[in-house]
Amino acid sequence: MAADLFWPGDDRAGDHFTSESFLWAMVDVESDWLGRPLTVPKDLEWLANESESGGNPVIALVGLLREQDEGVHRGLTSQDVVDSALMRMSEAAVVSVRRDLHAAVTRLAALAATHRDTPMVARTLTQHAVPTTFGFRVAAWLTAVLDADDTLADLDFPDQIGGAAGTRAAMVELGRELPPGVPRWHTTRAPVTRLGDALVGCTDACARIANDVVTMSRPEIGELAEGSGGGSSTMPNKANPVLSVLVRRAAMTTPQLAATLHLAAAQQVDDRADGGWHAEWATLRDLVRRTLVAASQTADLLAGLRVDPDRMAATLAGAGDAVLAEQRTMAAAAGHDPAPSYLGDAIAYVDAVVARAHSTLEESP
Amino acid sequence: MAADLFWPGDDRAGDHFTSESFLWAMVDVESDWLGRPLTVPKDLEWLANESESGGNPVIALVGLLREQDEGVHRGLTSQDVVDSALMRMSEAAVVSVRRDLHAAVTRLAALAATHRDTPMVARTLTQHAVPTTFGFRVAAWLTAVLDADDTLADLDFPDQIGGAAGTRAAMVELGRELPPGVPRWHTTRAPVTRLGDALVGCTDACARIANDVVTMSRPEIGELAEGSGGGSSTMPNKANPVLSVLVRRAAMTTPQLAATLHLAAAQQVDDRADGGWHAEWATLRDLVRRTLVAASQTADLLAGLRVDPDRMAATLAGAGDAVLAEQRTMAAAAGHDPAPSYLGDAIAYVDAVVARAHSTLEESP
Amino acid sequence: MAADLFWPGDDRAGDHFTSESFLWAMVDVESDWLGRPLTVPKDLEWLANESESGGNPVIALVGLLREQDEGVHRGLTSQDVVDSALMRMSEAAVVSVRRDLHAAVTRLAALAATHRDTPMVARTLTQHAVPTTFGFRVAAWLTAVLDADDTLADLDFPDQIGGAAGTRAAMVELGRELPPGVPRWHTTRAPVTRLGDALVGCTDACARIANDVVTMSRPEIGELAEGSGGGSSTMPNKANPVLSVLVRRAAMTTPQLAATLHLAAAQQVDDRADGGWHAEWATLRDLVRRTLVAASQTADLLAGLRVDPDRMAATLAGAGDAVLAEQRTMAAAAGHDPAPSYLGDAIAYVDAVVARAHSTLEESP
Amino acid sequence: MAADLFWPGDDRAGDHFTSESFLWAMVDVESDWLGRPLTVPKDLEWLANESESGGNPVIALVGLLREQDEGVHRGLTSQDVVDSALMRMSEAAVVSVRRDLHAAVTRLAALAATHRDTPMVARTLTQHAVPTTFGFRVAAWLTAVLDADDTLADLDFPDQIGGAAGTRAAMVELGRELPPGVPRWHTTRAPVTRLGDALVGCTDACARIANDVVTMSRPEIGELAEGSGGGSSTMPNKANPVLSVLVRRAAMTTPQLAATLHLAAAQQVDDRADGGWHAEWATLRDLVRRTLVAASQTADLLAGLRVDPDRMAATLAGAGDAVLAEQRTMAAAAGHDPAPSYLGDAIAYVDAVVARAHSTLEESP
Repeated sequence: MAADLFWPGDDRAGDHFTSESFLWAMVDVESDWLGRPLTVPKDLEWLANESESGGNPVIALVGLLREQDEGVHRGLTSQDVVDSALMRMSEAAVVSVRRDLHAAVTRLAALAATHRDTPMVARTLTQHAVPTTFGFRVAAWLTAVLDADDTLADLDFPDQIGGAAGTRAAMVELGRELPPGVPRWHTTRAPVTRLGDALVGCTDACARIANDVVTMSRPEIGELAEGSGGGSSTMPNKANPVLSVLVRRAAMTTPQLAATLHLAAAQQVDDRADGGWHAEWATLRDLVRRTLVAASQTADLLAGLRVDPDRMAATLAGAGDAVLAEQRTMAAAAGHDPAPSYLGDAIAYVDAVVARAHSTLEESP
Repeated sequence: MAADLFWPGDDRAGDHFTSESFLWAMVDVESDWLGRPLTVPKDLEWLANESESGGNPVIALVGLLREQDEGVHRGLTSQDVVDSALMRMSEAAVVSVRRDLHAAVTRLAALAATHRDTPMVARTLTQHAVPTTFGFRVAAWLTAVLDADDTLADLDFPDQIGGAAGTRAAMVELGRELPPGVPRWHTTRAPVTRLGDALVGCTDACARIANDVVTMSRPEIGELAEGSGGGSSTMPNKANPVLSVLVRRAAMTTPQLAATLHLAAAQQVDDRADGGWHAEWATLRDLVRRTLVAASQTADLLAGLRVDPDRMAATLAGAGDAVLAEQRTMAAAAGHDPAPSYLGDAIAYVDAVVARAHSTLEESP
Repeated sequence: MAADLFWPGDDRAGDHFTSESFLWAMVDVESDWLGRPLTVPKDLEWLANESESGGNPVIALVGLLREQDEGVHRGLTSQDVVDSALMRMSEAAVVSVRRDLHAAVTRLAALAATHRDTPMVARTLTQHAVPTTFGFRVAAWLTAVLDADDTLADLDFPDQIGGAAGTRAAMVELGRELPPGVPRWHTTRAPVTRLGDALVGCTDACARIANDVVTMSRPEIGELAEGSGGGSSTMPNKANPVLSVLVRRAAMTTPQLAATLHLAAAQQVDDRADGGWHAEWATLRDLVRRTLVAASQTADLLAGLRVDPDRMAATLAGAGDAVLAEQRTMAAAAGHDPAPSYLGDAIAYVDAVVARAHSTLEESP
Repeated sequence: MAADLFWPGDDRAGDHFTSESFLWAMVDVESDWLGRPLTVPKDLEWLANESESGGNPVIALVGLLREQDEGVHRGLTSQDVVDSALMRMSEAAVVSVRRDLHAAVTRLAALAATHRDTPMVARTLTQHAVPTTFGFRVAAWLTAVLDADDTLADLDFPDQIGGAAGTRAAMVELGRELPPGVPRWHTTRAPVTRLGDALVGCTDACARIANDVVTMSRPEIGELAEGSGGGSSTMPNKANPVLSVLVRRAAMTTPQLAATLHLAAAQQVDDRADGGWHAEWATLRDLVRRTLVAASQTADLLAGLRVDPDRMAATLAGAGDAVLAEQRTMAAAAGHDPAPSYLGDAIAYVDAVVARAHSTLEESP
């Protein structure tokens, strides 16, 4: 990807969903269909400029590839190539997202175990509520990441092989046998919208963590801090929770991108949409790359996270008697003295979530 | 629901997610927790007005319910009651949505079988492309609905039982045993966002159908017509494809509602969010009701759909030789004369989708 | 409006954009056109249910009104009545929103003047930055509200009088003279999208304030507090910043509603849209009512806001030397000792914004 | 901009809002502040990668620029540089958008005049309604574009000069005099959201036109055609309305981008937001570039548009008596025979809109 000054951290997404990767993936689809390797053309800029006249980049690409083999693309249509290429790129990207999520899971499981019993005040609607432990909080973060990962694990990345209008008429005319089970989704876009929704689930989970970090690293709270922190262009003293800020940023933008994929799906008409299809490509690109960046930043953020149990204990102590008011009410209702601890089954829950994390990590390749 | 002049057809959603139903569902949650039935208070308007001071309707409701039993709500928190009530209402609504989707599936399977071989011109980017059959088009609609239904079938509707900050401290203090497997999702909202995403998948699928109906019922095309059609306030001659128009309407609004649920999930912080939680309720209500209306309208639309095979044949004939240009290219490439038909494996695909439909219908209760 | 348990505070929006008000406004449009008063029918539920068959409520309504006068609606079309009614309701609602914004402006101007010199630490990316004053912060809030109010003040609320397809053919046939300057916007929806965008500008401004209140009323910061605060269903000790939370809630939902209005506008086709028009009504209703509620809650929130200058001073003192690091760098660069104060032109800015506020209040009716 | 295979036509946006342009604009802001020219560094990729650690690209950039002049950036903060650079780029981009809109206006005014009296059938909810003229339809398109242009014309593009926390403390410490009237909007983002809303207004207007072109160029209607049309990768016969399709694509994505700008604005907190600010940059970039592309494509689309008045006349004739049903009702009500024409004041309206267009063109530089 060209250097992107507008999205700090974009380089973390590497080559996923760059124009070059898109070109490679389209050539890959054509090669598979042709049954022999094709050389990837170098004329990316020319292709990009030509893509407007056909409405997509395939027509110009096929023109170039035909110089290598006259039989290229025979039986396919543009949409087969674009859709299959997008799914292949998506599958690779999701592998990479999950790798970062699993790094986060590993770190979160360790954090949860370490701080299983670290006392902290729970906060609801910003105010002190009752006692909790930092491990219990981490178990919530971990649940969010595991839920997001589960949704990713359920995704399919089907090729699209339908020909001009989905009927595969040209293939049959050419006597081609089709691989069994290849679905057709040229006008029914669940593979795209499910992918988009699952990716947003990831940034939701990452933001769940980042929100707590920006809050708890406020100097007045000071229970957490990003490992290094970011500097300021004018204030030498600042150590900003930059990774958390950038993760939060991503999560403010991705839901609208997934909504665009649904809106596009809901515009499908005839045997190929007149705009709905075309709106997907850049939208999916941005959604994928931002999720990759956010997952990677979250893993790094957790790797460097500094926890201050003393400060947590001090806050809880400072919250005083008020956070035990509920317990007194309950104990009175139950007719006994308040128990020495008021943590419910929080510890057991931490253990259960950590076990779920280990089970996920063991199942993953 | 009060009569809604702003959303024609809203009455199709019946009592799902009305304020009254919300009240019933909350009382149901409290009754289950208490272990004995509670009478639903009648003071809906008072409750609604009181709900602002606590930020949610539970505090005022519990005040009323305590007049029936002092032990009500003991160990719970507002969020437990609201979240569990929303999920119970959602589960009932999804049953209803699926009932309408299955009615559509039944009708679509019949339509696909009837018109399996009905010749029609395929259209891509609005222009005539190659021959197809109307049954093949219906198979695409059916695929969209079945995909949406599959996603609904995978949903969970968990209760939320966590107490003040998720730790169940009050319950343990009270000596309550918890039902096993009750998850905690007070700050990790996958149950809500997955539900929202699945509902949008339904309106996507309904719009997929409606788009074709509004297009193909244009008088210049005239291959389809809504059974009755809607009238005009000033033109006595009009027969508008009203149900399709209203379905399309819904699908323009629901993706942004699901995006709001994700944005709210991504605002989760501490042990209860300071706004993100509150943004879910009305958003989910609107999303559920609009999906219910759209699914019902789609089922009705399909029940009354009039198909004009003669007009389809005439259009295909009028499209002339141009729609066979691809075939000639392919036959020439393959070195044989064009086959008498150019439908690829469309018919086999129709049969496969119809079989999938029957399998879905058989599995459903 | 029927009691809404899903949107605490909804009653603040009163009768604006209720189904009853919509009915009244439509009858008002018809009366004006007819030139004599019409009685508003009572059959709201029947009208709502009938509205589906025509796709909008006008056809059934005209049927009822013709019982009063046969000449009703002559020359108009449904869209004329719906669009004009929406604009009349919007104009009244915007008056009400601006009244609440002006109440907020009055309070903010007083707060800014009172705390013009109240020392406080400025925070950027959650961390302590440099000294500021609370009055300077309030000036930012005030700027946000004044900017939003300016945009509202620029809105137009045109009637729509175009007849069946905008040509006014029926009116001319009937020999009707049209009021001069009545625009036609049946398929160009700038009046709707500008209104939607302006309303979101209001919730943006309200959230700007609410975000600071929820942050600064965290117990560890404690520089602000909502006057009364909301309670908890289980914790007797809690005082939650409920109004701020509910304002934040609104601002998470309104941008997507305004986006829906744009998406609908971008679906306009022919001489009346096949879904885009219909998607506007409920969307605008929700956007208007939520803005009304948020503006009213913000005005109340500000009226009751408690400011703790001692705590602000303590935080600034506690921030210590670090918040003067920039000043030392600058003074060294300038070759002089640091000035006794490091507030720049903040005080002058407060005065300028307060003057702008007074000017706005004087101009308003 | 690097070649973008994901957004065909992207090259039309030229250098607007590329990373290179962003770098130039930031150096331009620093140069103006310093009072002498600075050389733009070549290390774009390094800068992009470094931008993550500070959360924005300014810190690393200032490091490079200090090699040229030690006094660079003195008194500013990162946000001053980024915000001012974005506004300067935006101002240039809006000039370019308006140039394309004015090209469209010129062409539309000519089309409207030419086809002022060209008979055509009006369509509402996809069905034939009453007679109209093509010039009247074009007048609607023109109104949409003029409304969008008016909103652009009202925009401001203020620099942002506030220093670390908006108080301009460093500037005052340094003895800098500030240009009068430079506003501060570091946490009140109306300049950004108004810009975003206005840009969406442009794609709304462009889509208004494109929707009609894709509809009316369906072969069964055939009243319009894109000048050249786009080809197919497999069907030699196709001539797709590609520009219209790509314009429609844009308009499905931009409303959600503008919504993101509002959501980011509504996340402003403290004296600089912890994510809301950062979410703006790429969002605005995409919104600006897509609007540029859509406006340019619309101008080209109109320049090449082919109109078939004979086909329009034939459709109207084929619609037959039904489209005069309203007239008969009205004439009977008025007690006279139907007038020979049923066009209302459509012709006068065309003239009025064309006059508005000429007035806009004359006022523009």
